[in-house]
Amino acid sequence: MTRSVDLNSDLGEAFGAWGMGDDAAMLRVVTSANVACGFHAGDPSTMLATCRTAAERGVAIGAHVSYRDLAGFGRRAMDVPATELRDEVLYQLAALVGVARVAGAEVRYVKPHGALYNRIVTDAAQAAAVAEAVALFDDGLALLGLAGSAIERAAAGAGLRFVREAFVDRAYRPDGTLVPRTEPGAVLHGDDGIAERALRLAAEGRVTASDGTDIAVEVDSLCVHGDTPGAVAMAEAVRARLDAAGIPVAAFA
Amino acid sequence: MTRSVDLNSDLGEAFGAWGMGDDAAMLRVVTSANVACGFHAGDPSTMLATCRTAAERGVAIGAHVSYRDLAGFGRRAMDVPATELRDEVLYQLAALVGVARVAGAEVRYVKPHGALYNRIVTDAAQAAAVAEAVALFDDGLALLGLAGSAIERAAAGAGLRFVREAFVDRAYRPDGTLVPRTEPGAVLHGDDGIAERALRLAAEGRVTASDGTDIAVEVDSLCVHGDTPGAVAMAEAVRARLDAAGIPVAAFA
Amino acid sequence: MTRSVDLNSDLGEAFGAWGMGDDAAMLRVVTSANVACGFHAGDPSTMLATCRTAAERGVAIGAHVSYRDLAGFGRRAMDVPATELRDEVLYQLAALVGVARVAGAEVRYVKPHGALYNRIVTDAAQAAAVAEAVALFDDGLALLGLAGSAIERAAAGAGLRFVREAFVDRAYRPDGTLVPRTEPGAVLHGDDGIAERALRLAAEGRVTASDGTDIAVEVDSLCVHGDTPGAVAMAEAVRARLDAAGIPVAAFA
Amino acid sequence: MTRSVDLNSDLGEAFGAWGMGDDAAMLRVVTSANVACGFHAGDPSTMLATCRTAAERGVAIGAHVSYRDLAGFGRRAMDVPATELRDEVLYQLAALVGVARVAGAEVRYVKPHGALYNRIVTDAAQAAAVAEAVALFDDGLALLGLAGSAIERAAAGAGLRFVREAFVDRAYRPDGTLVPRTEPGAVLHGDDGIAERALRLAAEGRVTASDGTDIAVEVDSLCVHGDTPGAVAMAEAVRARLDAAGIPVAAFA
Repeated sequence: MTRSVDLNSDLGEAFGAWGMGDDAAMLRVVTSANVACGFHAGDPSTMLATCRTAAERGVAIGAHVSYRDLAGFGRRAMDVPATELRDEVLYQLAALVGVARVAGAEVRYVKPHGALYNRIVTDAAQAAAVAEAVALFDDGLALLGLAGSAIERAAAGAGLRFVREAFVDRAYRPDGTLVPRTEPGAVLHGDDGIAERALRLAAEGRVTASDGTDIAVEVDSLCVHGDTPGAVAMAEAVRARLDAAGIPVAAFA
Repeated sequence: MTRSVDLNSDLGEAFGAWGMGDDAAMLRVVTSANVACGFHAGDPSTMLATCRTAAERGVAIGAHVSYRDLAGFGRRAMDVPATELRDEVLYQLAALVGVARVAGAEVRYVKPHGALYNRIVTDAAQAAAVAEAVALFDDGLALLGLAGSAIERAAAGAGLRFVREAFVDRAYRPDGTLVPRTEPGAVLHGDDGIAERALRLAAEGRVTASDGTDIAVEVDSLCVHGDTPGAVAMAEAVRARLDAAGIPVAAFA
Repeated sequence: MTRSVDLNSDLGEAFGAWGMGDDAAMLRVVTSANVACGFHAGDPSTMLATCRTAAERGVAIGAHVSYRDLAGFGRRAMDVPATELRDEVLYQLAALVGVARVAGAEVRYVKPHGALYNRIVTDAAQAAAVAEAVALFDDGLALLGLAGSAIERAAAGAGLRFVREAFVDRAYRPDGTLVPRTEPGAVLHGDDGIAERALRLAAEGRVTASDGTDIAVEVDSLCVHGDTPGAVAMAEAVRARLDAAGIPVAAFA
Repeated sequence: MTRSVDLNSDLGEAFGAWGMGDDAAMLRVVTSANVACGFHAGDPSTMLATCRTAAERGVAIGAHVSYRDLAGFGRRAMDVPATELRDEVLYQLAALVGVARVAGAEVRYVKPHGALYNRIVTDAAQAAAVAEAVALFDDGLALLGLAGSAIERAAAGAGLRFVREAFVDRAYRPDGTLVPRTEPGAVLHGDDGIAERALRLAAEGRVTASDGTDIAVEVDSLCVHGDTPGAVAMAEAVRARLDAAGIPVAAFA
């Protein structure tokens, strides 16, 4: 029997007068929406509208929590003390849960955003703070992140389900970690190749690493980006390839 | 049989490194805590700590929602479009509800703060936006505001319980409205006189207006301030006078 | 001898990851750039880049000062006390002047943005606060605003040069005021008609009002918008029409 | 001939309704005021008032630039890309320079605040960004920081005067670095001992390290804190001890 795979994307990243990406297009492609909660993007009206559209489309909603950093779009790592970080995550999660309720929807998971996502791959204290916030609020929520990371261990420690994410357009090292964006070849291009890569990740849990070797990558959800027109086309190509191959695409939640 | 009266105060108005008022002292005096939700004051850790202490003391928790205005402490009226205001109120309310849940407490009511409080005495559109936010989120929540105001009418229209608030240290006009702060004599001083005034408001629903006439003021909750040492003493004097007179002081919620 | 006319546009309105408009295109069309100063838009790097490009193109730089309202893009009027408003304007102006200096450029004028622009058409206290900020900082700077408004009077009172602005795509009432955006027909469409209208405003100082009558509008600078692709085309049409008619287009400063 | 020493303190750290410290008292003690510029604290009106009082007292003014972090009071280190950091520092510096001009005063130096101060002790990229911002704006300004640090080297590289700061109430390691605040004994107490320590730092450039050895510490300016009543008394004790010993206390600028 074929295992299903989830497609997730960062959505609701407008803020006031500023737009970001083509959410309407992406909500036709993905099965899980990481909705910004106001700290890196996402004003309240955008949050509500995004939850409403996601609910209409049957797309699962996750809280895309971030460092408090509108000016840096949450892309600047911050040394936030653990308790402070826990409470900032809790605040964002709680806000989205309430907004989603008004949209007739439920938040199913939490995906840390940007610099926070990257930081808790290795920072055990911040990872524990994030997991604690989620567990205190509702231990039925899942945490989405990178397999083999500090946040996977923190999720386990907090009794939370962990959802392993893979990236369709990022190069992997032989050890299964991502090639950093600062290195050449870190980000892949070419919709066909990426769609094929996505299919192999979903169907076999394997990918070709940067040195040409074939490695195993455990994956429950594939991340696709939607903040440029080209990205939408790539996401559509990935979805079409999975559909054509008969891989069920469905929310993990 | 004697009717009880509620004492409410604005609390949790610290933000990061900045403190405000003596919350610990006030939480020994009041029965309802208006907790700041992050838009005029109240960082997440302060929100959580305030909810925890309120819960320990058996003090009811209300969401003290505001215009988004940290620099002005929510004291600057803003022409926020109704939908935007509704969603900003919803966001704050939802955040506090989730934070309170982690503190083992429930939010029972919403009290608009500062310039928003004053604006919705007369601005029907903004009042309706606030009431709609509350009703959409949970129509079991009460709205606390000035009797005879646009927000009282909006609460009724939205099917919400309205809690009528009176001020122990503000002068009233013969028509029952407050003397604006910009006029002389608007704010009263002298703990004994204020405590006596609070007792009459609570026991008889009457107060001496600015022209010396005696008027009726319907009141479910008395507002006491806590942001100066003198204010704490005044609040304690009010509480002591009510206790001595045998007026039950209890949360309305 | 033909009088020249200035074309101004709001630029530098990106903020962090969010873009706004096509500044590069507009800086080929206009002669004055209203540069956002961080309160409604405009992060420091955007401010610097905008000043640099403006300087390269010989476009005059103005400080586009605003209420402190990133979430509302400065479009929400605020009851800011006069002293506070004065100091907030001063802060923004000073920041831009220093940033421009590093770009090898000078700030020549101040144009209030959005809700502040509209408010000081009639609000004498806020108008005086804005004019005072400018005059305290440098009374050689000009103030750009609507002719016949409170800010024109405040500029005169503060000894500042006032630059009268007209709008090429807005309907005028017979009394010379703008038809509010909330009314039908307030914003005009059709590049040719707008370009013709701009030409008449520049060449004759006259425009057809909303009732069909022909009225006088004193104008030193024409405002063109650049925040949509269509707006760029309109701005280019206006510029082309003025050029074709031999009207010198030059910064007033 | 006796060398003079400067006393500097962090001032103007109020923000809107929130106060911080006793600036009036500190401005009677110190010779250099590090004035917050709006990113960790310091609203425009506070900046102007602080500059005015400093100017009246003949206290030199420095720009106390910070990461953009009101919620964390600039105490959370941030991985800000160098260009972005440079421009954020430039913005703050420019704003204060213009505000000070209106107060009839000049900014003489830049002192990074909190987490930024600590980060650029070792982070060469961020240190270079700070130094570049200052040098681009005005290479006549001094940079104040920890001796032997990355920022001292960056200042030299940018052709800026570097002012070496010592702390009167912090423990030093034998190698001249500060004992981190997370370790016991990092912060010293007792006004008399601290005043004596300050005197030795100023007069001899020597201090007793945490292991009891006597070490050399080059110092142009002594930092005293003012954000608690006890801190004011300590600052006064330091000043009194220096005065009594005949050490000239004067701004370095």
